Order: sequence, then C-alpha cells, then structure tokens
Amino acid sequence: MKKLRLFTPGPTMVPEDVMLEIAQPMFHHRTAEYREMAKEIHGLLQYLFQTKAMCLTFTGSGSSAAEAAIVGCCPPGHKALVVRNGKFAERWAKVCATFGIDHTPLDIEWGHGAKVQDISKAMDADPKIDTVIVVHSETSTAALSDVEGIAKLTRDRGAILIVDGITAVGAIPVKMDEWGVDAYITGSQKAMMLPPGLGFAAISDRAWERIDSGKMPTLYNDLKAYRKSMETFDAPYTPNVPLVRGTHYVLRSVKERTLEAIWAETAMLAKGTRAAAEALGLKVYPADPVDSVTAMLVPDSVDEGKLRKTMRGKYGFQIAGGQGDLKGKIIRFSHMGYVDAFDTIGAMAALEFTLKGQGYPVTLGAGVAAAQAVFASAMD
Amino acid sequence: MKKLRLFTPGPTMVPEDVMLEIAQPMFHHRTAEYREMAKEIHGLLQYLFQTKAMCLTFTGSGSSAAEAAIVGCCPPGHKALVVRNGKFAERWAKVCATFGIDHTPLDIEWGHGAKVQDISKAMDADPKIDTVIVVHSETSTAALSDVEGIAKLTRDRGAILIVDGITAVGAIPVKMDEWGVDAYITGSQKAMMLPPGLGFAAISDRAWERIDSGKMPTLYNDLKAYRKSMETFDAPYTPNVPLVRGTHYVLRSVKERTLEAIWAETAMLAKGTRAAAEALGLKVYPADPVDSVTAMLVPDSVDEGKLRKTMRGKYGFQIAGGQGDLKGKIIRFSHMGYVDAFDTIGAMAALEFTLKGQGYPVTLGAGVAAAQAVFASAMD
Repeated sequence: MKKLRLFTPGPTMVPEDVMLEIAQPMFHHRTAEYREMAKEIHGLLQYLFQTKAMCLTFTGSGSSAAEAAIVGCCPPGHKALVVRNGKFAERWAKVCATFGIDHTPLDIEWGHGAKVQDISKAMDADPKIDTVIVVHSETSTAALSDVEGIAKLTRDRGAILIVDGITAVGAIPVKMDEWGVDAYITGSQKAMMLPPGLGFAAISDRAWERIDSGKMPTLYNDLKAYRKSMETFDAPYTPNVPLVRGTHYVLRSVKERTLEAIWAETAMLAKGTRAAAEALGLKVYPADPVDSVTAMLVPDSVDEGKLRKTMRGKYGFQIAGGQGDLKGKIIRFSHMGYVDAFDTIGAMAALEFTLKGQGYPVTLGAGVAAAQAVFASAMD
Repeated sequence: MKKLRLFTPGPTMVPEDVMLEIAQPMFHHRTAEYREMAKEIHGLLQYLFQTKAMCLTFTGSGSSAAEAAIVGCCPPGHKALVVRNGKFAERWAKVCATFGIDHTPLDIEWGHGAKVQDISKAMDADPKIDTVIVVHSETSTAALSDVEGIAKLTRDRGAILIVDGITAVGAIPVKMDEWGVDAYITGSQKAMMLPPGLGFAAISDRAWERIDSGKMPTLYNDLKAYRKSMETFDAPYTPNVPLVRGTHYVLRSVKERTLEAIWAETAMLAKGTRAAAEALGLKVYPADPVDSVTAMLVPDSVDEGKLRKTMRGKYGFQIAGGQGDLKGKIIRFSHMGYVDAFDTIGAMAALEFTLKGQGYPVTLGAGVAAAQAVFASAMD
C-alpha cells in the first residue's frame, strides 16, 4: 500500500475537511449568501496580507492575479524594474514584454534574493524607474528576497512595489501595510491549503492611483472591473464558487491558528529539513534560503530524475526537481500548508532510502535525527 | 497544525477514498443492486478468509459475529474449552457463561499465545470437550496463538474450532480451509480499513452440522437466520448499507493487492516497530508477539497515562494503553490497514520526543533509525 504525500511547492496537500467543504452542494453566486461570504473573505484576506487595502479574488491561478497587478500598475509613461532571479521572476518580465510595458530586467544570480542595494543601484542608474517587481519567495530556487527593505526604499523614492508573494503569503512573515508594499499577490494552491484555481491580490491606495492614471489592453484580468464588483462583494465573471467556499473555510482556520503560529511552524519545518540535508552531506542550494520551500543540490553521483521517480513510485513522496538551468541539479521540498513535522520526518527517511538505493553513502537515520533535533526543541 | 494519526488497534485509519465511497448516496437493500453487491462480497470474503465456506456479514461489531458463532456452535450437550490469555479471550468465556454453555476456561499467562500442547493437555484431561475457542491475535496483549497447529489437533480429535480473528484476518496469515478452522471471525474496523459497524464470520460445513443439531436462545445473532438470507444474498435485518458498500470497495482492493503482499507489509511494520522499541531500551511485552499490533512495556520512570496524552495532544498520534491488569503498564501500536512505513517512522519519532520529555534517556533518532533499517531492506 502506498500513500501519496505531496511535497511539491504547489499544489500542496489539501486537508480532508477542506476537500469536503469544497464538495458541499453548489450554490449560485448572484445571491446574498455569496456576497456575505465574499465580504467575510475580504476581511480575512486583509488579515492574511496584513493590510487595510482592498483584496481581490481572481478566478485563475496566482499568475492571473500577478499579471493583473503588473499590467494595471504599469500603464504607458511608467517604467518597471523587474528583478530576475528565477523562473517565476522571469515570467513577470515576460508579462511586461507581452503588454509592451517599458521595463528593464535586473538579473541576480539564481539562488540569491533581491537585496536593497541591488534595487537602489538599478534605480540610481535609471531615474525613469518608478515601479519595482520582485518575487518574495522565488519558488524555483527557494530563495528569499528582502521585501521589507525594498519596500522602504520604494516608498522613500515614491515608486510602486509589486510583490509576487505566491509562496510567501500565509507561509512566511508578510506585512503589507507595515512594510509599505503596493501590490501583493498569492494563489490558492500553496500555503492556503486549497486546490489550484484562485489568485489573490491586495492593492494599496497608491497603486490604485497609478492604475486609475492610465489604460491598458486587458479585460479578464482588469483590476478596475474587480474593484467595481467589490462595491457589492460580487465578482466580475463567474467565480469558482466551491473554491471560494473553501477559501472562506480555510481563512477562518488560519485566523484562528494565527499567522504567527503558522509562520513559526513553517520556519521549523524548513530548519529541520535544512538540518537533515546537512547531516546527509547535501548542500542547501540557495544562498538566501526561504522557509516555505527547501532546495537541495543533488550530489554528482546521484541521478536526480531517478531519485524523484523512486521517491514517488516506491515511497509515495512527490517532490519537485529544478526548473530551467537547475533541471536535474536540485530537488525541492515544500513546507507550506497541510504538512507537519512527522510528514517531513517521513520525507527525510524516504530521501535517505532513495539516496542509499543509488549507492550514495548514507547512515540511515542521520538526516531524520537532525530534523528530529530541530523539531523536538521547536515543539517543546 | 496537528494531524491526527490513529495507531490504535481498532478503530484504525480509514483511507479517504473509502470514506468517500461510504458517503455515496444511500440505496435500499431490498434491491437487485444490493444483492449483486452482497454476492460479490461473499466471494471476496471467501478470499479474505481463504475458504470455500459460507461467509456472513453482521450488522454489529466483531463481537456480535463472535457471539453468534460461539452460541451457534455450542448447543446443549457440547462442552467448550475457552482459552483465556487476554481481555478478548475473557469475553468469549463470558459469552459461554451468559448463555449457559458448558465450558471450561484454560488460563494461559497474558502475553503468551495458545499452543498445541496446552489444548491437547486440556482435552486429554476432559474428554467431554468437543469445542475449542481461541483468539488468534489477542489484541489486549499483542500475542499470537498457533491456530494452524491447534486446528490440526481439533480436526484429529473431531472437535470444532472457533477462532476470534478480529485483529488477524487481513493482517496476518489466515488460511481457514488449509488449516481446518470451523468458525473464523473478524470485524470491519481493523485490517479491513473500514469504520466500525460490521462483523464477519466464515462458518465451515462441520460447524453448520453442529449448529443444526441443537437450538439456542438467540435471535438477532442467529447464524441460521443469516444462512437463510444468504440464499438470496439478502440480510435478515436491515444491513448497514454504506458500510456494506465500503466492504465491497475495500475487499476488491485487498484482492488486487493480494493478501500475501498485505501480510508481508504488516509483518514489516511490526518488525520495524519492535526494532525501534529495542533500540530505545523498551521491552516488547508479549512472549509470542503478533504482527498486527505491538505492545511495549512502559519503563518504570515513565508515566503511561501522561505518555499517551502527550503522544496524542502534542504530537497527534493516538496509541492504545493496556487493559485489565496491563493498564498503565503497556502501550500498543497498530500495524493494521491504512498505515505505512512512514506513518510508523513518525510514530516512533513522536514516541522518542515523548519519552525524552519525561526525562527518559533517549538518543533522538535511535528508534527511528532501527525501524528505518528494517523498512529499507524490506522495501528493497
């Protein structure tokens, strides 16, 4: 018998009670019942993003919400700096190119997060830059950017900051208003413990001013249409009613557990996983590791494709490989959402079995014990 | 966030797909659809018990099926030998007493299984004994009886053998016809990966002869009524339709996986758990350990009630304590049904955390590594 345990950094595991909530009978969205639910979700999303700003729910993936925010915030006459330090960062540069947005990429070595001085230098070099697009947690490399520091800089310089928080929001500290971020994005299938299908964006008043200052060729992902519908807690296009219901259910439990508790648990899982990697002689790939996902370099003697195939086919743990230049070089374990210390201990045990199966020298239990040491003290 | 992992030796964890199957819309049992399902279940139960005998499904727990078999097989004029080596064995002696069945108890030290010479000696001492009642896997002590050997003896002597296989059937080797057992019993909530609510009994032709030879004061649990209803694959009283549906679903998958594979996996989990116990300096309690559940003696310095409370409340692993004289002295971990190597690794990690929390000397990871060593070679 094999249980499938999803350790991919999205989609992540969904709790049974959430699946059952989603499976409740359909109801129509042009109803008071739906609007009441949407209103409560709005307040809960404000808690999730730690903001008083308007929060929008998109029937689409996180990328739809990100495209909406980028396109909306970059009408003609503005110029964006797009940090490129991974696969997802590259996608936002592509959005700019597709929509003819004036932009300049800022390439940062993969595995590194964006830091204040990188942005500061780039803005100094090009005074036309008035928008910065950065990925908080770059899922492809498992690297963390300094959003708090960058937000302070963009506020000081009067620039708009758009943050892809898809694997950050609900997993690691995100404080939109305190930091001064203008557009924060996430999706349903990561820390929110839901199936894929919804994107979320929190849009600051400063961002709305920018959005209202111009016009862009976008219809389905038009932020203004979403804002208009929020006057009545409605949706501009038919919403995914079951997933909205699931969002309502999940966010209530998130608030009950508190974000601080969730952030601490995610950090613990990451710390334990990194300790396990080290004990097994595997190098954590990113220079600036984020706590929502851990990437490890695969040793030269180990076949990465075979490793993941064994992890899933033989032991039931589905993990992620590398993307782009990192294909075949790294493996990634998620720490988001419905995953706990004992799932993670199991994943490390399966990793040990798999490495050993390929002849990599492993003392069975060494990685697990290192993770256990972290968890034991954190759970005390 | 806490996931609850049920390590009690019944009820055990139920797979999500089984729960969803059970949650399918109700249908009526006086239908061709129900009879078709009951007919297929009958064949699958024959596979489960490894028999060509008639297999009955009771709307009740395993105890209802056991009572039906004992009462039916012991009409006036017969005498039963009831092996008493644990809490469940004691229950079958109580059934005999309640129904005025002529019987003699055979007390065996708890933690030990019944062996051929025990039975042989008792039968030599009392030639009136023509029925033997034995528990295959005594859940309260985690001890295994030699059913194969005892069945050979009872066949040789023309006695009827009734076996409580509640935590044996579907978990450890059970070969009703090959061994020559006359009545084998089980319940839905153990290795069958279903919620509690159904009992099952396989009744040999020899047992039916005995049953037909007398009359006993029983109605709801009357085997004859069940046999009569099987002529049309019907039920004598309203059956638990959703659980019957679940039985159909589960037994199909059991046959697909094969009993041999399931027995091997259960044995592996038990072996790994015993290795973990030994590595942690905990003594496995029974002298004749069974593979469906492991009982460990709690060290003197450790508070058993507190241990189980911590295991469940802090780490989410619900295990069982001792019953009767063993209360406070042992803890028990199930290896039946929907539990795998990685769940078990997690349980051993949680046990280590818990023991350490009570000041018991633990090298974190020592028990887990011992289990891993067993699993790694078994899964290869």
